[in-house]
Amino acid sequence: MSVTAAKGFTAAGITAGIKESGNPDLALVVNTGPRRSAAGVFTSNRVKAAPVLWSEQVLKSGELTAVVLNSGGANACTGPKGFQDTHATAEKVAEALGTGAGEVAVCSTGLIGVLLPMDKLLPGVETAVGQLSEHGGEKAAIAIKTTDTVHKTSVVSGDGWTVGGMAKGAGMLAPGLATMLVVITTDADLETGALDRALRAATRVTFDRVDSDGCMSTNDTVLLLASGASGITPEYDAFAEAVRAVCDDLGQQLIRDAEGASKDIKVEVVNAATEDEAVQVGRTIARNNLLKCAIHGEDPNWGRVLSAIGTTSAVFEPDRLNVAINGVWVCKNGGVGEDRELVDMRYREVHIVADLAAGDATATIWTNDLTADYVHENSAYSS
Amino acid sequence: MSVTAAKGFTAAGITAGIKESGNPDLALVVNTGPRRSAAGVFTSNRVKAAPVLWSEQVLKSGELTAVVLNSGGANACTGPKGFQDTHATAEKVAEALGTGAGEVAVCSTGLIGVLLPMDKLLPGVETAVGQLSEHGGEKAAIAIKTTDTVHKTSVVSGDGWTVGGMAKGAGMLAPGLATMLVVITTDADLETGALDRALRAATRVTFDRVDSDGCMSTNDTVLLLASGASGITPEYDAFAEAVRAVCDDLGQQLIRDAEGASKDIKVEVVNAATEDEAVQVGRTIARNNLLKCAIHGEDPNWGRVLSAIGTTSAVFEPDRLNVAINGVWVCKNGGVGEDRELVDMRYREVHIVADLAAGDATATIWTNDLTADYVHENSAYSS
Repeated sequence: MSVTAAKGFTAAGITAGIKESGNPDLALVVNTGPRRSAAGVFTSNRVKAAPVLWSEQVLKSGELTAVVLNSGGANACTGPKGFQDTHATAEKVAEALGTGAGEVAVCSTGLIGVLLPMDKLLPGVETAVGQLSEHGGEKAAIAIKTTDTVHKTSVVSGDGWTVGGMAKGAGMLAPGLATMLVVITTDADLETGALDRALRAATRVTFDRVDSDGCMSTNDTVLLLASGASGITPEYDAFAEAVRAVCDDLGQQLIRDAEGASKDIKVEVVNAATEDEAVQVGRTIARNNLLKCAIHGEDPNWGRVLSAIGTTSAVFEPDRLNVAINGVWVCKNGGVGEDRELVDMRYREVHIVADLAAGDATATIWTNDLTADYVHENSAYSS
Repeated sequence: MSVTAAKGFTAAGITAGIKESGNPDLALVVNTGPRRSAAGVFTSNRVKAAPVLWSEQVLKSGELTAVVLNSGGANACTGPKGFQDTHATAEKVAEALGTGAGEVAVCSTGLIGVLLPMDKLLPGVETAVGQLSEHGGEKAAIAIKTTDTVHKTSVVSGDGWTVGGMAKGAGMLAPGLATMLVVITTDADLETGALDRALRAATRVTFDRVDSDGCMSTNDTVLLLASGASGITPEYDAFAEAVRAVCDDLGQQLIRDAEGASKDIKVEVVNAATEDEAVQVGRTIARNNLLKCAIHGEDPNWGRVLSAIGTTSAVFEPDRLNVAINGVWVCKNGGVGEDRELVDMRYREVHIVADLAAGDATATIWTNDLTADYVHENSAYSS
């Protein structure tokens, strides 16, 4: 059901011809109201794609009528012409819907440094508007795929209201503030302030803690749109929890579909002095190529965990560090612990616990192993 | 000639049986004087191996008579027993040479988290002492190899004096202050202060700017020993330049032998606001897995360079960035530049220039591509 699970939304996903493959490449999500509140978080990469610069601007009003998303090209590092193309796309959507371009967010994904084929994209917008439907969420989710092998959607229902979302992302997954392309909708009757607060709280502990390959995109965008069509204003906490659950679910789907990955690795840092330090240590472990290779080889090489921790500025004493892999404490007090032969690594999910013995803060970062397939997928052609 | 190119040094390399492969695994370098000045730089990893902790201590005197090095085990994360083993190794060398253990540095390399087989190592020390020779430098360089496919040595001669060195290292190459195991000798007649100054100046712009895989070792050690046997005290600048040249040569040999690499990538950052920012940007580009895969695939994917630059805190404007790959300015003013089809990437060395247009500082970081062979070498067995 994706972004049309919530009342007050229509969507479409079509093939505009942007992708050479002929696969669907243009999605449109429209908020039919009555309310048009919206919030968003964007990549913290300082090299931002034209659609990110545009969407940041239009979102300042706190309202959105539509989001148009294309795969097949990121429209990043494309200069003034790229920005004009984004603007023209929003104008085209606005014209077809009878609204203003300042009500239309734009998202793009694909290769950096290439202009979009506007002669295909603009007619595609007309086609998409003609196919808008209350059942179009699934098609929209399919149209934003790039190297994704599956489309990603999630729905959580509250008491008379619903939060639904879609996401794309399989590589360049290491958001600083937001991640990938994600559109979340709700029919809850909420103002922009509540949406913004719930979305930032959710992304901070979900997408921001997904780090598949340490590479931060120029196009990451997460949008949350509220139609108010349910007529219900939920308790903030219940709503925030539903948004967090949808973000968490979509984040997990991104990790499970990461390029070339054979393992999903949960890096749980416990007993850190602060949450920030727990995140720093978790991210450092998650980005260690040698460890990621070892996990691929089902080798519980805890020395690589310790050597990664040692590069951080977090509070810890080397001789008090403990590491468990899949429940076996292979490192105790900075040295050899339980027999590493006891570690069973046959399954896709691998759980690493790093105990800093320095406080009571904790954080979990999700990552993937590093595989020959990842190398192949990212070296055999431009993406 | 390696570490015995300079007068006043003997060396040996033997098979003690530490490695299961039966390859040489124990090296000894002895300064026969008359002078015994020494300086060293060590890993900035906060998880330091026992031999690093030991050698840092003994070097405080500013003098060393011998360095004993083993491959086949890092003696890292091995607790109090590991430190005792390092101490016992130094004692054994000192006893055989008729000196004190406080004159003996110890270096180890290999798998983290495993105790060394002292029943093999200590008899090996006796064997090595028996084979010390003014021609033993080559054998010593061979005995410190782990996954290295070739041994690495370098010699630079001054006016009546010589600087020679050996290095090992092929993975976990991302030093913070020093790198890998390196022993450099000279027969120049210089005090510890001059050695220390020359060594730190040299490593800052050589080993510290080699970043093969972003993974910092627990055992990195670079030692510089002076025997004074030439009787000549060179000008400081000439000596410092010779040390820099040896470090640069050894650093390049490490990059060329990096695990699984098919490309050596020179990342040159120009027109940065400060040298520190140039290093930060260079290192960030060098650690971007997606870019490293693209280079492996001979794909001049400059968008991945820009997305890496965008994650740094360096001074720059996105629309003033320029990127050249092998002499072709594929990105100009943050957008599409010269035709990427013009880039010839058939050769092993790839040269990336990132122009920040923000000042006049520059720095060069050397790295490698990311390959399926790297994944294989680091996943198929523990190392």
